[in-house]
Amino acid sequence: MPATAVDDAPRAYRYAAGVEYDGGAFSGWQRLSKHGEPDPPGEATLQGAIEAALSFVAGAPIETVCAGRTDAGVHAECQVIHFDSPVARDPRGWVLGATAQLPPQVCLRWCRPVPPGFHARFSARARRYRYRILNRPVRPALGRQYLAWERRPLDAGAMHRAAQALLGENDFSAFRTVHCQAPHARRELQEISVRRAGEVVEIEVQANAFLHHMVRNIVGSLLLVGRGERPEAWIGELLAGRDRTVAGPTAPAAGLTFLGPRYPAEWHLPAEVTL
Amino acid sequence: MPATAVDDAPRAYRYAAGVEYDGGAFSGWQRLSKHGEPDPPGEATLQGAIEAALSFVAGAPIETVCAGRTDAGVHAECQVIHFDSPVARDPRGWVLGATAQLPPQVCLRWCRPVPPGFHARFSARARRYRYRILNRPVRPALGRQYLAWERRPLDAGAMHRAAQALLGENDFSAFRTVHCQAPHARRELQEISVRRAGEVVEIEVQANAFLHHMVRNIVGSLLLVGRGERPEAWIGELLAGRDRTVAGPTAPAAGLTFLGPRYPAEWHLPAEVTL
Repeated sequence: MPATAVDDAPRAYRYAAGVEYDGGAFSGWQRLSKHGEPDPPGEATLQGAIEAALSFVAGAPIETVCAGRTDAGVHAECQVIHFDSPVARDPRGWVLGATAQLPPQVCLRWCRPVPPGFHARFSARARRYRYRILNRPVRPALGRQYLAWERRPLDAGAMHRAAQALLGENDFSAFRTVHCQAPHARRELQEISVRRAGEVVEIEVQANAFLHHMVRNIVGSLLLVGRGERPEAWIGELLAGRDRTVAGPTAPAAGLTFLGPRYPAEWHLPAEVTL
Repeated sequence: MPATAVDDAPRAYRYAAGVEYDGGAFSGWQRLSKHGEPDPPGEATLQGAIEAALSFVAGAPIETVCAGRTDAGVHAECQVIHFDSPVARDPRGWVLGATAQLPPQVCLRWCRPVPPGFHARFSARARRYRYRILNRPVRPALGRQYLAWERRPLDAGAMHRAAQALLGENDFSAFRTVHCQAPHARRELQEISVRRAGEVVEIEVQANAFLHHMVRNIVGSLLLVGRGERPEAWIGELLAGRDRTVAGPTAPAAGLTFLGPRYPAEWHLPAEVTL
């Protein structure tokens, strides 16, 4: 009976959602256990927490795909995920229901139904990160959860000028970790700025996509320029050399926040994640 | 032998210092135990922590006086203290030595020798506070340590206009807690502003001095205006009525940060605490 077969076919509703998190308490985005099983003790993951919350709301197991997996300790202002659910819920139901299940470090900011062709990772055309460094002799107390710290004076202007050498489509091998699994290291760096606001030096960077540790490795090298230990031209030389062993050390996770991905307007997502 | 008597007279060096803290883990500023004894378990105080750190650096018991005692959970960008030490240390020694002894929620930002006539509380001519409210349907995850949360939409413009009725020298009995020990309720409110930056509504207020819970009670009442539950003129009526039982509830501590006191220029303190 073909009619019955059609009725029995699994139906799924696809949603996109914006996720905000303080990554300090998490072993990064990626779930370490099998889907549907809890995270190992002491190794909570964002994916594990969010899938558990969405599955509770759906009353069925939910898997998620994110725009950009963040490392342990890295924060997100607007990570974007997509997921398929066997049941439809209104966006408010997903947002408030899942947030009520989530630990205080995580919340859903918004949720939208999307066509089945939308993919949180593959549909994204750009990703944006911010890195914040408190630059003063004394370590941060207020806001220390979201700041790196550099006691030696930084020349933010020199860092900004040096960073412009990274613009464009380049091979970023010099700034990827040895653990990076990407098939190649070509990325298009669309924008990078370094500016000082009082005691804080803030780096913002946008690319079509990033390699593993790429932002933190760029920041680690820019810090050497900012402290006057390397000339401004060194950043361009590093890039051209494609040798990770020459670049600066990986800057700490706490200073890094994934501001979010950007999608074409055709997906009708909130303005903050639309190109 | 008078000469010996003079030599034996206790000598003290007076210092002023700027203190930054995340108040979330503390039972407020004021030490609850006797001077020189540790804080009771589970009731850490900022004064207790700072006096222990300074005493360690001095190698002698140090007592502190602060510009404005903050309540449990309230933060400070630049609390100012003064203290007398039987030994002289250079400012850098106090700052780095004490900060190394302090828990991660607290640090000394600066330290200056001051004349014996300087008094952190009585020399201050003004105090400034900031209150931050995240105004959106979903609770905060990032920065939740430093934010209050209001899910209903707030009219920041109405709050700002209503707040201007508080300007000038007034009796603020309507906004003091019943536990307030001040001999009278007259204070000069020098400036108050309410403005929105995206999802955050930020209130800044400056007065010569504040009563206990005064900022949080003003904010609690302004929230009723912002939600449209009271007219703008209500704030002025509350002030005139001097009746605490009529005003809005005390807003939560987490949103409140003591930006710092302001002193006359004659004390040669850093610009951020100078009038």
